[in-house]
Amino acid sequence: MPITISDITKAYERIAHKVHRTPVLSCSQINEIVGANLYFKCENFQKVGAFKYRGATNALLSLPKEKLAKGVTTHSSGNHAQALALAARELGVPSYIIMPSNSPKVKIDAVRGYGAEITFCEPNLQARESTLERKVSETGAEFIHPYNREEIIAGQGTAALELLTDYPELDVIIAPVGGGGLLSGTAICSKGTNPDIKVYAAEPKGADDAYRSFCSGALVPSNNPKTICDGLLTSLGDLNYGYIKKYVDDILLVDDTEIIAAMKLIYERMKIIVEPSSATVLAATIKYKELFADKSIGLIISGGNVDMQVFFDSYYAKLS
Amino acid sequence: MPITISDITKAYERIAHKVHRTPVLSCSQINEIVGANLYFKCENFQKVGAFKYRGATNALLSLPKEKLAKGVTTHSSGNHAQALALAARELGVPSYIIMPSNSPKVKIDAVRGYGAEITFCEPNLQARESTLERKVSETGAEFIHPYNREEIIAGQGTAALELLTDYPELDVIIAPVGGGGLLSGTAICSKGTNPDIKVYAAEPKGADDAYRSFCSGALVPSNNPKTICDGLLTSLGDLNYGYIKKYVDDILLVDDTEIIAAMKLIYERMKIIVEPSSATVLAATIKYKELFADKSIGLIISGGNVDMQVFFDSYYAKLS
Repeated sequence: MPITISDITKAYERIAHKVHRTPVLSCSQINEIVGANLYFKCENFQKVGAFKYRGATNALLSLPKEKLAKGVTTHSSGNHAQALALAARELGVPSYIIMPSNSPKVKIDAVRGYGAEITFCEPNLQARESTLERKVSETGAEFIHPYNREEIIAGQGTAALELLTDYPELDVIIAPVGGGGLLSGTAICSKGTNPDIKVYAAEPKGADDAYRSFCSGALVPSNNPKTICDGLLTSLGDLNYGYIKKYVDDILLVDDTEIIAAMKLIYERMKIIVEPSSATVLAATIKYKELFADKSIGLIISGGNVDMQVFFDSYYAKLS
Repeated sequence: MPITISDITKAYERIAHKVHRTPVLSCSQINEIVGANLYFKCENFQKVGAFKYRGATNALLSLPKEKLAKGVTTHSSGNHAQALALAARELGVPSYIIMPSNSPKVKIDAVRGYGAEITFCEPNLQARESTLERKVSETGAEFIHPYNREEIIAGQGTAALELLTDYPELDVIIAPVGGGGLLSGTAICSKGTNPDIKVYAAEPKGADDAYRSFCSGALVPSNNPKTICDGLLTSLGDLNYGYIKKYVDDILLVDDTEIIAAMKLIYERMKIIVEPSSATVLAATIKYKELFADKSIGLIISGGNVDMQVFFDSYYAKLS
């Protein structure tokens, strides 16, 4: 049975004591630029710096106790791996993360810092999947897919639930789309709360499989995607696709130049750090202004995990 | 008559409808590192991105109406210039900002963006002062010193007032020191609210005139200061020095390497943008850990105006 708003409400009851209730920020200067009232739901302030912690926590807390005790596993080098590792540690169960051997050191350190056992594999899908299968049969750990799973979708939907509790009068909600976990959760929650609310996705032009799937009416896999949004490179999941087709009003494409400009605006005017994936929603709001004039718009800021080494290097260079 | 907590309370009544009540953030990961409970008073989220807007607004609203109508002037290329320009615009009066001809374009644009009339002068103190005098006699505008003025001190003290209203149980408050406006306001407010609270200043080792003044018992001017904290290069004001001598418990020196490390911690763990000057307070908390074990500590995060061009350039470089 497909999940509904009531599954998201239940997920929230399950995870509320574990997640941060993230703040909703506004910026009058950006409102002026856009000609609308924007409400930024700041999941960059969530634990592990991304909304992913919500879904991971919900997935774990939904497992039967004996199953949970055996731990969880996934293949990921991104925010989901960190989220799963921390959620497992907080519940006192092991996590096994399969990472490609060429993962950046900073990501390996982060996952290890949250207490996960890391297994490296060749950097290709086949190796990831076979290593994962082996890990599952060795440990009995549950594989937690990053987005194509109902407990994950319900968990990610709790960000929109909090936002709509704080701002029930929103006309529009916009979320980024990669695999589709956040978007499908957001859409189920929003339409379930208020059928009149418009739900849009923002997607990078260089990774537009959700857009092409949405337009063609059939799930199209991602084909050699290229964008600065490292969180949005994955292909849309089939479960996610079903919910998106049903609940999302439209998918808005933005290119990387527009995404960087929006990101710069957020850094300069709001003084918060967001990852490129998160800036897509503001980029879409600016690009498709005419859709949004004078509306109240909730923007899901998905995360704030971004490599700032080059910025700090510029300070270290001044020391000598 | 020296100002007291009651002047800060009055300043707050005057400016409360004009300033943002900035949030106070916590970060459990940083608390663990420090071994204390830190409360970050986020003036980087203040209008113009810095606490300076509080003092500027209070100074303007304290002027007699006819005087205010003639406008205000100052020489500055930093946050005070932007604060004064915006405060004047919000009150509908002119502002005249004297800037050195070699000021960075980004700062000139910011001040102009807030509606100030800019007059350029040679980049030396004598030219700044003579240009300022000419501007005052031409326009009748009031010169608003960036820190050595009681209305400015009282205005800057309102950040601590908000913080202590939200967290009356703080054991310690730490503020950065440059000219001393923020520190003296913070100290007057803190000791006036609770005489048992400890007030510390954080100062860059490469610009340690406040430390040397504090230790020697006589105001020592800044001598060729060198630090990445561009907001803390100015010499301590004599008015400020008097309050600091009276109310501040100690001045803690931190070097630029320590400041960058603290800044990195804030960016990575808290996902907020702060300027180097603001990171001094966390750097001091880390360096002098033994002073602060298990204490509740308020840190005044002074501002978030930092040039991130090199960071965004790294994204633009990926586009081609």
